[in-house]
Amino acid sequence: MSEIAMPDSVAHTVMERCDLLATCSEEAGCVTRRFATPPMHQVHELFANWMRTAGMTVQIDAVGNLIGRYESNRAGAQTLLLGSHLDTVRNAGKYDGLLGVLVALACLERLYARGERLPFAIELLGFAEEEGLRYQSVYIGSKAITGTFDVQALALRDEDGIAMVDALRAFGGNPDPALLRSPRWSPEELLGYCEVHIEQGPVLEAKQLPLAVVTGIVGQQRILVTFKGEAGHAGTLPMKQRHDALCAAAEFVLAAEMLGQRESGLVATVGQLQVQPGASNVIPGEVTLSLDIRHEDDTKRDLYADQLRERVDRICRERGITLAWQPVQRSPTVSCAPSLIKRWRQALLEEKYPVFMLPSGAGHDAVTMSTLTDIAMLFVRCKGGISHHPAESVLEEDVAAAIVALERFLKLTAKEVEDERI
Amino acid sequence: MSEIAMPDSVAHTVMERCDLLATCSEEAGCVTRRFATPPMHQVHELFANWMRTAGMTVQIDAVGNLIGRYESNRAGAQTLLLGSHLDTVRNAGKYDGLLGVLVALACLERLYARGERLPFAIELLGFAEEEGLRYQSVYIGSKAITGTFDVQALALRDEDGIAMVDALRAFGGNPDPALLRSPRWSPEELLGYCEVHIEQGPVLEAKQLPLAVVTGIVGQQRILVTFKGEAGHAGTLPMKQRHDALCAAAEFVLAAEMLGQRESGLVATVGQLQVQPGASNVIPGEVTLSLDIRHEDDTKRDLYADQLRERVDRICRERGITLAWQPVQRSPTVSCAPSLIKRWRQALLEEKYPVFMLPSGAGHDAVTMSTLTDIAMLFVRCKGGISHHPAESVLEEDVAAAIVALERFLKLTAKEVEDERI
Repeated sequence: MSEIAMPDSVAHTVMERCDLLATCSEEAGCVTRRFATPPMHQVHELFANWMRTAGMTVQIDAVGNLIGRYESNRAGAQTLLLGSHLDTVRNAGKYDGLLGVLVALACLERLYARGERLPFAIELLGFAEEEGLRYQSVYIGSKAITGTFDVQALALRDEDGIAMVDALRAFGGNPDPALLRSPRWSPEELLGYCEVHIEQGPVLEAKQLPLAVVTGIVGQQRILVTFKGEAGHAGTLPMKQRHDALCAAAEFVLAAEMLGQRESGLVATVGQLQVQPGASNVIPGEVTLSLDIRHEDDTKRDLYADQLRERVDRICRERGITLAWQPVQRSPTVSCAPSLIKRWRQALLEEKYPVFMLPSGAGHDAVTMSTLTDIAMLFVRCKGGISHHPAESVLEEDVAAAIVALERFLKLTAKEVEDERI
Repeated sequence: MSEIAMPDSVAHTVMERCDLLATCSEEAGCVTRRFATPPMHQVHELFANWMRTAGMTVQIDAVGNLIGRYESNRAGAQTLLLGSHLDTVRNAGKYDGLLGVLVALACLERLYARGERLPFAIELLGFAEEEGLRYQSVYIGSKAITGTFDVQALALRDEDGIAMVDALRAFGGNPDPALLRSPRWSPEELLGYCEVHIEQGPVLEAKQLPLAVVTGIVGQQRILVTFKGEAGHAGTLPMKQRHDALCAAAEFVLAAEMLGQRESGLVATVGQLQVQPGASNVIPGEVTLSLDIRHEDDTKRDLYADQLRERVDRICRERGITLAWQPVQRSPTVSCAPSLIKRWRQALLEEKYPVFMLPSGAGHDAVTMSTLTDIAMLFVRCKGGISHHPAESVLEEDVAAAIVALERFLKLTAKEVEDERI
């Protein structure tokens, strides 16, 4: 149904490259590729080769971001950024991150094959780190390239005790704080940042749609909740004399679930829960749990957090439990730029794909890139909504749709630049 | 109010010995004394000295039980067993176990000081192991002395990788399976086993009573419950599409609590709960928890377990969660012998202590001893019901009451033997 003529081989090549890149792993038999590890070099080599073949200049920056530049046909043109991340979680799938870089690469290869240059330059970014697996610190790549890197993170150590500063040096990077704090571009040089990414959720599949235009990256709060009751002997302390921290926590887990089910657009998750002392014959004296709540509307999300706080206060008061409510993270919603959303919608319309809008419940490098320039994202359907798992799967036809849509997006961008509308 | 004249110094000595024995520890600054460790040798030396001074013969058996024998004034007399355990939990109090051995020792010292022998022998047992701390295997001492030791346990390893067979050999014991499977006595040689122990619960304190005659050791079931749901991204999976294992587990935790609160004599505890994968931004895919339920009536307890099983089946069915219900332990209630209970009641009556009966919610060596002979227990009030904790505390006057009661119990036993009623 697309207007753009594209041989089947284009998306097929992307799928094959996902398979090939999956072999660049720290662990045999599964995909694990942490920040600044040898398999990342392999990925860089493969990409650098493809990029140069597509007429791009290639460089690796101080933190290990891969940057391929496709020059404009105009001197002093602005730059549109495309990209996604090259690292993975442990025992990952093949598409999270990589697919976005490969879809953009496929578009650039087609441009180059046609001898086509645009009235803007394109930089294709393969971020060094997004997942936070190695140093429990996310977006290392996009933070460094936007000059928002926290240099104290250089002292963080991975599970083998290797400090980030040493890992970076061993990788061939340059842990000079000045470099890691310098943005690669000034905002006026840029036309925006666009990222193609798998949805990592089940909505597109449920709606039987290949693509979604992302409205924004949903803000979230993470709160550490501690319930201090009284440990005691499971056999000798009568039920009515107990102050069981786990029972209080259980009430809270269900209250959070109920609020999430009741309020549209809200997700509330208790993903971690630890019981102390944690013996089968001892009444739990202390429970610590993590609450993760997300909603696109920052005001509403704050309100829901307050409601849960009031609820847990009441639970603990009634049970004689001491509560500690410790917010550990609050990220506001990052909206995609209305002008870029409009262009994505136009691209889908022109290519006769259904136009569907979806917020991103997961975080992405686009969050960091938004500190410097307009952002936009396109989601690709993934099977069962499964991500961060070897079962991660996408349809080749959906990948083709993403390439077509991005190609149309680039054409629309070119037209706007030529018309001097941007 | 007691009939028995006893100087204050007797109970005071017991308290001082508790303080002294607390210094025999594997860890400085707190009391931790595991099975077959050097501090156990120190405890043995101190006790052996006190026992010999009180006219007893002393031996350490193959598994490391300390046995002091106070001979009868009759040839071929039967033997009454007194005692408790010498090991502790980690970071323990000073009275759990030890107090029972010291109270019995105090009685024997008074007998010896008066030059008194009884028409039965007394063996004072200091069990090598009761808590299960080192090998997650409880009652090692009483199992070996009753010939019910499972020799496969010799292969168990502690947290340092030391097998029980090696620990026992290093301690000076003898891990010969034949020895560990031979009961020290035949049932007809015995008059029963009596154990004095702190209550480890808050009932006596609430009732303002120093002592309780134990009716039996409450039976228990321990069940491992596993909830298998589906892990997923906390940001991208809508609430209605989730199969959150922790939410199902939370419902179950509260159902168990509610049943325990509703049914008299029942205690139900979830003491352990582990969440997989256990990341703040991942919906729990699997939860494993331990259920501990106790009730003196075995039939009722089985019924309550069935009720909870039905409840959790329903919870999991409604939530699309797969359930595994794995009973790991079922110990029937062990009743104290009516004849011994009667004698304890008589002893308290004659000494003008209120007679109060209480089941033991905690397990004791008496459970194992019941495989060989009649058992009975006397509980001593402890502060706040706190046990297995440095804050464990008893009143000296309650210790004095226990010594007086046990002395009367021995006199009543002597009378029954002399009257040829037993």
